Amino acid sequence: MTFSSKVLQKAVEEIAQLPGIGRRTALRLALQLLKNPKSQAEELAKALYELVNDIQFCQKCHNISDSAICSICSNSYRNQHIICVVEDVRDVMAIENTQQFNGLYHVLNGKISPLEGIRPSDLTIESLVHKVQQGTVRELIFALSSTLEGDTTIFYIHKKIKEFPVKCTTIARGIGIGDELEYADELTLGSSIANRILYQEKL
Amino acid sequence: MTFSSKVLQKAVEEIAQLPGIGRRTALRLALQLLKNPKSQAEELAKALYELVNDIQFCQKCHNISDSAICSICSNSYRNQHIICVVEDVRDVMAIENTQQFNGLYHVLNGKISPLEGIRPSDLTIESLVHKVQQGTVRELIFALSSTLEGDTTIFYIHKKIKEFPVKCTTIARGIGIGDELEYADELTLGSSIANRILYQEKL
Repeated sequence: MTFSSKVLQKAVEEIAQLPGIGRRTALRLALQLLKNPKSQAEELAKALYELVNDIQFCQKCHNISDSAICSICSNSYRNQHIICVVEDVRDVMAIENTQQFNGLYHVLNGKISPLEGIRPSDLTIESLVHKVQQGTVRELIFALSSTLEGDTTIFYIHKKIKEFPVKCTTIARGIGIGDELEYADELTLGSSIANRILYQEKL
Repeated sequence: MTFSSKVLQKAVEEIAQLPGIGRRTALRLALQLLKNPKSQAEELAKALYELVNDIQFCQKCHNISDSAICSICSNSYRNQHIICVVEDVRDVMAIENTQQFNGLYHVLNGKISPLEGIRPSDLTIESLVHKVQQGTVRELIFALSSTLEGDTTIFYIHKKIKEFPVKCTTIARGIGIGDELEYADELTLGSSIANRILYQEKL
């Protein structure tokens, strides 16, 4: 690509460093920003600068937050005895959207993955174990993806805390609501039969 | 989407205003920027700010430039008598990449399109007509897309300058190099026969 302007070239190169955005898309975005009112690009630039400079991570659950303790951890109406263990911030948002969970969270910031070089010490496992040691936690719900890495992570954490009186559960694996049985894979279908739930009439 | 942080929410909203980027992608990009070194987001913010504040448009050809006259217009080795008329900056870059054109450009900044509310006065047509009136231009090459809007734009400009002694040409429409004849549409194939070129052995 031959650029007629160094400023444009610099902007395209920076935008193209974002994951999933190539140089052609980056050029399209840059030219669109030039067409739109100047304030849009300035607001975007300001928001990005503040994103990396003003954001904090909750000292308790490691979720993204605007303060030292996030709004979930500081909410006394939530059940302080149940902690849902998730991989990253997006999972917290997804579970919060269901409005089915009223406990606290613990964000691991990844999964144990020897292939990608992610060791237990790279995650916030120590801080989770410390919470369990304090004795107020009664249940840990593991809401990790059902992969080798997810299972390894659960296994590792479970080994660390098995001496403490805390119940460990994982979210149910089964056929999604609205899904056809015939298209489900054997492992999922098998698991959904083994872990069947008692039929209750809905009120 | 429920955000645990106003700063994150603001960043996601600003990123999602870019064309073709939804809120989910915006969230993925924002979280990736938080994972990467802080300097990446800061560099990106700086580049975006400079993009809209430092960029200029060449006073002669309306191409994006770092100075009042762009590097193409100020290059005395280029043929000053042939002007290639294009829709936008990307077309200049595409044609420059072919290394087949040694004249100057004129960027219209769009095509006449009543449906989208783009009138002739929204484009840089006046400035093109003014150049032709000055008498140094011998040929205008219209390199616009072969659509109703492109054809309307060529027709409009041609009407404005037909009294001046300037040759008007359009880029050839035909079968792309490497393309199979059987997959070409009828209009293109017909045009490629009507506008056939004399066979010359390549040296």
